[in-house]
Amino acid sequence: MNANTQATKWWSQRYGAEEHAVEPEIAGFLGHRSVRKFSDKEVSRDVIEQLIAASQSASTSSNLQFFSIVSVQEPARRERITDLCSKQDQVKNAPWFFAFCADHYRLSSAAELSGLDASGLDLLESFLVACVDVSLAAERFVCAAESLGLGTCYIGALRNDPAGVAECLNLPKGVFGIFGLCVGYPDESLNDNVKPRLSQPKIWFEETYDQAVNTEEYDSRMAEFYERTGQDPSLSWLEKSARRLTLEYMGGREKLLPYLQEQGFLRR
Amino acid sequence: MNANTQATKWWSQRYGAEEHAVEPEIAGFLGHRSVRKFSDKEVSRDVIEQLIAASQSASTSSNLQFFSIVSVQEPARRERITDLCSKQDQVKNAPWFFAFCADHYRLSSAAELSGLDASGLDLLESFLVACVDVSLAAERFVCAAESLGLGTCYIGALRNDPAGVAECLNLPKGVFGIFGLCVGYPDESLNDNVKPRLSQPKIWFEETYDQAVNTEEYDSRMAEFYERTGQDPSLSWLEKSARRLTLEYMGGREKLLPYLQEQGFLRR
Repeated sequence: MNANTQATKWWSQRYGAEEHAVEPEIAGFLGHRSVRKFSDKEVSRDVIEQLIAASQSASTSSNLQFFSIVSVQEPARRERITDLCSKQDQVKNAPWFFAFCADHYRLSSAAELSGLDASGLDLLESFLVACVDVSLAAERFVCAAESLGLGTCYIGALRNDPAGVAECLNLPKGVFGIFGLCVGYPDESLNDNVKPRLSQPKIWFEETYDQAVNTEEYDSRMAEFYERTGQDPSLSWLEKSARRLTLEYMGGREKLLPYLQEQGFLRR
Repeated sequence: MNANTQATKWWSQRYGAEEHAVEPEIAGFLGHRSVRKFSDKEVSRDVIEQLIAASQSASTSSNLQFFSIVSVQEPARRERITDLCSKQDQVKNAPWFFAFCADHYRLSSAAELSGLDASGLDLLESFLVACVDVSLAAERFVCAAESLGLGTCYIGALRNDPAGVAECLNLPKGVFGIFGLCVGYPDESLNDNVKPRLSQPKIWFEETYDQAVNTEEYDSRMAEFYERTGQDPSLSWLEKSARRLTLEYMGGREKLLPYLQEQGFLRR
């Protein structure tokens, strides 16, 4: 399948029946999916260095570079980090695993050694900037990886036990693992289908936000997707989403705020 | 210049004298720079739709899609948003301007209408997920835009007056403009030089984080960069960075936490 035919298929899977011609340069950016099963094909250290150069090429607010990456390859440590990430198979089996971290430590410790004041690091603003910096770096890494045929999977479960992660990776106060990233060549058994998303007019507002909310059209496309992919179709997207946002489901994540405040983040 | 020669130049500008061969598919990802001056060449609505499809193709935690985009094209509203963003020229002059927003409103209002509980939206975790979702979407948009030769500039100043932005764009409670994005073809007078970054071993740790911090090598590369680009070289990168992290410099941003809590974010 050529790039344009593939992109047209992805467009239709994202948005339903609509068809849309896509510039060939853009086609690959529409095909993202999470890859949780990897082939044995090795990913060289040289390729990883190039992907890290891509991630460092992303914008970083005021060039503060509030992000660091820790790779976890040694079997015992990979086992431990897998346990910390709800024992997800892809964390254990991925050719490479990275913890993407918000890093205030580098600048706070360097400033302290030089007798400089960097007290604004404890503002919510500085935490937000770190979250954005790390995420921009990660997504440029992922886009570059996909251009080489690699697959990736973000791991939010890295936040399940931040103190455990800090101990496992020797993270100092001021460094927080926001998410993990699994990287490798996709297993050949995987197809390249992508997940439906909300239609563009539901997320792109021109001039002013439209406060009338209606998820019916998307719920119905997602119901077809659940059927087709063998997922429970008895709950709608809205119902599944709300369930994930109950305190019961989010068990433990309410500890994140006091943990981060202890680490010097988000005090004001 | 072919892609590889260009990427080798960028690698050397990022990291100093080192040279490194780069896969041709990855080359473009190394060349990111912020573009603040645009040519008159129009960016069609069709291209924007494709870039938005790219942004929606990024990963989103549990498919919650906590992000929305508001484009601001009408002259009077663009003028107003420019004022709200420290009157930055590129906001006023960019062919397209987008506010990238964390959006909890869509799911909270839909859940409320259906009598569902989504009380976990007030956790820090849900705010963090929105920041990550929005940033991943934005960076995939930016990477796709750059593949077409477009240039972009993130605008953190959108956070200067979040209540003013909310009024200007009719954002309801639960929608927060995290950053702006200017998009257009770069002015022909701009060169394609990129900014130095910390060397890879300073941000990529293998197995465990190295807590010994030393910014001297980077400070010296940045001093050359300041000289070369006509910026004040009397302060080092570390000193400039620390200055940006004083409360005096960050004036006003300490109001962000109480503002967001009023909006239903970050209560626990």
